[in-house]
Amino acid sequence: MVSVRAPPPSSAELFTLRMWKAAAFKQGAEVSRKHQCNAASQTHPQPDSCWLSQHSQVAPALASRVLRFCSSSSSSSSDDQRSYQHTYSPSWTHALAGLLAGTATVLAYGLYHHNAERAETRKVKTTEKAAALSIFSQEEVTKHRSLEDGVWVTYRGSVYDITEFVAMHPGGDKILLAAGGALEPFWALYAVHNQEHILKILSEYKIGDLSAEDLKKQQTIKSSDPYSSDPDRHPVLHINSLKPFNAEPPPEILSESYITPSVFFFKRNHLPVPRVDPASYQLHVEVLPGKVLTLSLEELKTRFPKHTVTATLQCAGNRRSEMNKVKQVKGLNWGIAAISNATWGGTKLRDVLLAAGYEPNVAQWARHVQFEGLDRDVTGTTYGASIPLNKAVSEEGDVLLAYEMNGEELPADHGFPVRVVVPGTVGARNVKWLGKITVSAEESRSHWQQNDYKGFSPGTDWDTVDFKSAPAIQELPIQSAITTPADGAVIYRSAEKVTVNGYAWSGGGREVVRVDVSLDGGKTWQVAQLRSSDKGQHDKLSPQPGRAWAWKLWEVTAPLPPEAQELEIVCKAVDNSYNVQPDTVAPIWNLRGVLSNAWHRVKVEIKEDQNEE
Amino acid sequence: MVSVRAPPPSSAELFTLRMWKAAAFKQGAEVSRKHQCNAASQTHPQPDSCWLSQHSQVAPALASRVLRFCSSSSSSSSDDQRSYQHTYSPSWTHALAGLLAGTATVLAYGLYHHNAERAETRKVKTTEKAAALSIFSQEEVTKHRSLEDGVWVTYRGSVYDITEFVAMHPGGDKILLAAGGALEPFWALYAVHNQEHILKILSEYKIGDLSAEDLKKQQTIKSSDPYSSDPDRHPVLHINSLKPFNAEPPPEILSESYITPSVFFFKRNHLPVPRVDPASYQLHVEVLPGKVLTLSLEELKTRFPKHTVTATLQCAGNRRSEMNKVKQVKGLNWGIAAISNATWGGTKLRDVLLAAGYEPNVAQWARHVQFEGLDRDVTGTTYGASIPLNKAVSEEGDVLLAYEMNGEELPADHGFPVRVVVPGTVGARNVKWLGKITVSAEESRSHWQQNDYKGFSPGTDWDTVDFKSAPAIQELPIQSAITTPADGAVIYRSAEKVTVNGYAWSGGGREVVRVDVSLDGGKTWQVAQLRSSDKGQHDKLSPQPGRAWAWKLWEVTAPLPPEAQELEIVCKAVDNSYNVQPDTVAPIWNLRGVLSNAWHRVKVEIKEDQNEE
Repeated sequence: MVSVRAPPPSSAELFTLRMWKAAAFKQGAEVSRKHQCNAASQTHPQPDSCWLSQHSQVAPALASRVLRFCSSSSSSSSDDQRSYQHTYSPSWTHALAGLLAGTATVLAYGLYHHNAERAETRKVKTTEKAAALSIFSQEEVTKHRSLEDGVWVTYRGSVYDITEFVAMHPGGDKILLAAGGALEPFWALYAVHNQEHILKILSEYKIGDLSAEDLKKQQTIKSSDPYSSDPDRHPVLHINSLKPFNAEPPPEILSESYITPSVFFFKRNHLPVPRVDPASYQLHVEVLPGKVLTLSLEELKTRFPKHTVTATLQCAGNRRSEMNKVKQVKGLNWGIAAISNATWGGTKLRDVLLAAGYEPNVAQWARHVQFEGLDRDVTGTTYGASIPLNKAVSEEGDVLLAYEMNGEELPADHGFPVRVVVPGTVGARNVKWLGKITVSAEESRSHWQQNDYKGFSPGTDWDTVDFKSAPAIQELPIQSAITTPADGAVIYRSAEKVTVNGYAWSGGGREVVRVDVSLDGGKTWQVAQLRSSDKGQHDKLSPQPGRAWAWKLWEVTAPLPPEAQELEIVCKAVDNSYNVQPDTVAPIWNLRGVLSNAWHRVKVEIKEDQNEE
Repeated sequence: MVSVRAPPPSSAELFTLRMWKAAAFKQGAEVSRKHQCNAASQTHPQPDSCWLSQHSQVAPALASRVLRFCSSSSSSSSDDQRSYQHTYSPSWTHALAGLLAGTATVLAYGLYHHNAERAETRKVKTTEKAAALSIFSQEEVTKHRSLEDGVWVTYRGSVYDITEFVAMHPGGDKILLAAGGALEPFWALYAVHNQEHILKILSEYKIGDLSAEDLKKQQTIKSSDPYSSDPDRHPVLHINSLKPFNAEPPPEILSESYITPSVFFFKRNHLPVPRVDPASYQLHVEVLPGKVLTLSLEELKTRFPKHTVTATLQCAGNRRSEMNKVKQVKGLNWGIAAISNATWGGTKLRDVLLAAGYEPNVAQWARHVQFEGLDRDVTGTTYGASIPLNKAVSEEGDVLLAYEMNGEELPADHGFPVRVVVPGTVGARNVKWLGKITVSAEESRSHWQQNDYKGFSPGTDWDTVDFKSAPAIQELPIQSAITTPADGAVIYRSAEKVTVNGYAWSGGGREVVRVDVSLDGGKTWQVAQLRSSDKGQHDKLSPQPGRAWAWKLWEVTAPLPPEAQELEIVCKAVDNSYNVQPDTVAPIWNLRGVLSNAWHRVKVEIKEDQNEE
């Protein structure tokens, strides 16, 4: 890595530099003051979260500014993170993948490429620093682990002072985890950093090199790829992010079978897939504080009756790509297939909680059940989520600790050996690779429960958002989409008819009771045929009210309207609480792009047959 | 009553007559054949419902034709049924009131006034009959009680052969209840019939007079007004139907207090208010077939703990008037105030079911709990409804047998001495003047459970509707509306600000978590302040998930946009399953006008102050 050598600044550039420094100083002072309040807390008690909470208020605000800077940038049409390695232009696809990986530093990098003023300033700073390059020992680097002492990091033998960058890191405090040490293990986890333009920006902060001796030591600690043991996946999947792995099947596969084959079931990982030895696997269950029940996989399977539940899981971000068309949001650019349906086999969570000491009095102080996964980031932070206690302990809640999916042991991507399946509830609470269950008065403190997976008004932006003001998504709203024909498909006039297929599902066990389909953009409607089983099989009896966990597939076959040259096919579903989907996307737009459930629309062209010409 | 004497028919009229007779014959033959299949059922077993079900399929089809005939008729702007007495022009308001009263004969009467062909035919028929007027004994009249023998009725001493009219009576079989007897007691119940144009049409069927002796006998049986013992009501209520009584408060009263005072709580009666003696009141509870627990009011109050629940009730038809603006529907023309919030005190239904023998095994065969009111029509048919068993027996379902409303004994209009309160569930299942509770495998067979209070696609009309295809409404969807300012209100520029108030509520115990308000028709949105108590009082703690039974009142104060001359104020609410309201009315339009929960919109004019002119 070679640092950038810029020419001396012009007077205009120097003016810009002064403006930039003034702004940076103000920010730095703010962050520094907050930091001090925490550092001082041992002698002068302060709220524990003083610095972190203030800091994380700064980060979203910055992120929103970045958002505005970048809104005019060209966006890569590729959703495949593998292509990130080969592109220089920062794009929203990258930024979104980064954020979802929990860091989103790329957002800040976008800043450098799109704000001319700041880019000029960088050059000046780099020039200043270039004169002062020197050799540092690891010991010296290690001393710089805070905003007060400066934040230094190493990367491939170079030393960087990134103190000023910290406040601009949209991932917030996570960047400080690397302070005083090497970036490699972090970037191995969040692969989105491995892009040339990001390295280029890093180089602007270079202040010297690591001593040859310490570099040698560092290199002996192999920084392995934490994703190297991720399982193989089916090549048909459309990949939204490779590391962590996030992918959805082609939509037409969804309506081909009522039960989605596990290989095609959408994959949504937040972290590397942990490899768990089933023989030594332990599940820890804490209902009463301090009293932990530990179960082996064998015990979980044999001490409790086995139940099976057919339940649809949906990612909160399903259909996010439609929100992105209204206005850019943060998150993986999911199409309509971040939803799938499987039959899960396992132990009822209720039974395990009872075995661990649950009795009705617990509900006097407890309101939530927290889950911790065995998937973790470099800091040891595990994936976590919680659900309401009454859902967990209700006989009719049907919450499973699943060890089977579609009659086979859980695949690695779906949580082997044990995951939670919370029917009717957003995918994010269905914690995979389950390690620990805790009954508690409070919701999970995890990032994904507190500061993600929540819905906001379309008028709320990153400057004004208060994550505490919205409830964590649990039950999802009514949803439906058209799986075939695809948007832009061509139908020949000679076909005479068009067949439309799709899925419909609602959260909270609310059964889908009707799907309306329009061929004219919503002016007139016909009612689709629903099915709750694979074709040829008999539909099961209607489920008990509030326990309809599985989707319905639907179909309409209608004559082609004689004069039409284009069809705008629209679907909307109704559940048994008579909730309906909203007409349009813009009024439900939200900054995280979740809960995208407006009417689904596809346009289809009707072509005259060639032999008729 | 004098029958119409028409001139002899022209040849064109005679042609029309032939067409009409051919059609009538075909219909008559169809009805007659079905009737025979039932009459023959004792020797050749047939499904019991053979005739009735076929018959009721004919009636809606006819009604829909009437709907089309009348769609161009002028509609009375008055919603007050008292005005029906003074108007000659048939209007939809009347027709709707009639239908809701369970009869809707006015629909058919509309036919005579709006279809020229048929009116001509009538004249011819009347002329034919005019020659044959004679005197009949009651004994002779009583012989004509079926379509085979002819359907005769008497009214004020005249005898009418209404056989041909039966198939056109949109209330279907109910008209046959009067066959062979006097109309007076039925029309006393369904007061909508008491209109001059209806009497005029009846006169066309006159075939003679009742003998003086029998008329005298009939007059000694006083036909009293079954509504004469209805309670007094507050004059501020806006009356949608006087008999039965249906009325809503002015919208601004709703947002004035978190708990709606009982006198202002919307009233929705299907039948006359029964006067129940609390000392002799008995509630019959049948959980296991044949084993009936009978409780006095005193026992209900003293044998079980008393619970209070604050719960909002909403009529399925709330905001129906907005659907009427899209296309006429059948039902009372409710505004936005068929919703109110009260604190109910009583016994938990669960406790009473347990006392009557409920135990978990019952759920093996039972799925529903049926309620019967003590309010009944002239045939003895009581109001009835049912709810799912799991709602009824769940500790968290909070279903009450309420004997108090807002801290006082139940008012007569709200079910004195005991009503069911099913929190989160459509008003129609909250049966008043409760007489009987039955645990059962099937839903209530009542008209209101089977053939009313269900939602359909906007593409479904009275020709195609199959009431069995839709589930009975139970939980209601997310709802909100603007109570002030009213549509058409004027705001002076000098006010500088506008304050918008409203309510928001969702069924199924789903808590309202956000209300978005727009001043520009839905382009931009701001988040309203929510409150769960009266002003000045502290909001209670957030309810447990799934037990948020009460509405939230909301308020937004915003500066008047400087250039705007009109505001289009819009509100939309979100519940904690993140269900949202649909944008527009037309795509949720349904033939019964229920579940009207699109964004609520009011337009407000901004006027320059006079002193500035």
